[in-house]
Amino acid sequence: MRLSSLVDAMLLISEKQLHESDSDSSEMVQRGLGWVVVQYHMDIKKMPTLGQKLKVSTRATSYNKYFFYRDFWIDDLDGNRMVDLSSAFVIIDVKARKMVSAAEKLTDVFGAEEITKIKRFARLREPKDYDIKKGQHIGYYNIDVNRHVNNSYYFDWMVDSLGIEFVEKHRAKSMDIKYDKELNIHSEPEVYAKIDSDTLVTTHWIKSDGELNAVAQITWEEK
Amino acid sequence: MRLSSLVDAMLLISEKQLHESDSDSSEMVQRGLGWVVVQYHMDIKKMPTLGQKLKVSTRATSYNKYFFYRDFWIDDLDGNRMVDLSSAFVIIDVKARKMVSAAEKLTDVFGAEEITKIKRFARLREPKDYDIKKGQHIGYYNIDVNRHVNNSYYFDWMVDSLGIEFVEKHRAKSMDIKYDKELNIHSEPEVYAKIDSDTLVTTHWIKSDGELNAVAQITWEEK
Repeated sequence: MRLSSLVDAMLLISEKQLHESDSDSSEMVQRGLGWVVVQYHMDIKKMPTLGQKLKVSTRATSYNKYFFYRDFWIDDLDGNRMVDLSSAFVIIDVKARKMVSAAEKLTDVFGAEEITKIKRFARLREPKDYDIKKGQHIGYYNIDVNRHVNNSYYFDWMVDSLGIEFVEKHRAKSMDIKYDKELNIHSEPEVYAKIDSDTLVTTHWIKSDGELNAVAQITWEEK
Repeated sequence: MRLSSLVDAMLLISEKQLHESDSDSSEMVQRGLGWVVVQYHMDIKKMPTLGQKLKVSTRATSYNKYFFYRDFWIDDLDGNRMVDLSSAFVIIDVKARKMVSAAEKLTDVFGAEEITKIKRFARLREPKDYDIKKGQHIGYYNIDVNRHVNNSYYFDWMVDSLGIEFVEKHRAKSMDIKYDKELNIHSEPEVYAKIDSDTLVTTHWIKSDGELNAVAQITWEEK
């Protein structure tokens, strides 16, 4: 299963919960607001296999002035945990393109607890040099209804840059990604990777027009 | 919804029926055999929308010495037909890479009727010249478990070559595709398109190493 499909499956579930409080993506757009993911941390204990039935769950855990935190998890039908994902989202005012307070803009916080702390995610930085650099074409199939690139494709681009041989011999154990700037249909992104062969940690970043779009780190193990 | 996702959704249903007779893709591989699609004809009355619930159905209609014919259709929950797809498959001996008689290799033909006629599909040919030519990178995410390119991606590549503006202004009404030669992970395909602006018919073909991999025709209407 592709990392992008995994994340898409989880996001679909949160849209369901948000829909019950009129806060799913399309409903937010109508109110001039948008959910924007800032960071994910994912642990993949076991990658789902073709045809396997899964139970996908989500819970809005907490929020503070800026961030809204949500957990996702995937279990097999025997209740064995396969994937854990924690995430931080912000709400933006689409016209002003700036962050607004999550708590103020939501009538229902889905049982999430208000906290004052900012949760720590992995600190991800763009490395100074790279081992791999590849131009990435944005296709119509990468675009969502709002004419933005669906950022779950970033995983595919990042993994793909390592080459099919690497992907076939390794298994992703965990992944951190931080989103900086959205890509649009006119962007001409470059995908970079730096590989630490000893630790099997790969760092990935995407830039367009000299600006960083996202940076990620994947920890692998040999299959 | 992407054409590739549409076709994938339909194929998934046929795998279920084939599985009941130990003839789904993985079971066939174990017997040294493979289902290979030769041609599709698709009519899209209405493209499914995000979140819409659908009923996807398939029926093995008939077979002769060489071909196995199967219909697929998608209805909305009120029973309105959205998509119709007819297909011709062959069974190949994977090692010898040659066609074998479908009827002889299946213990169950799923109620399909034996016929002597060869069904007519659209005759598709590679045009002499082209309006668009684009190299296509094959990513790990295009590869199936057998290290072949999942050929439902051909639709995405073909549509994408027309440019996002064309895709946004038009709706695909019908599509014919003929598969000639599989792509593998080392292929470096070129995607070609020829556009007839009067009839809104676009012809698409994919070549690699001087050989034709697939040729398709899409009829569009303005949105």
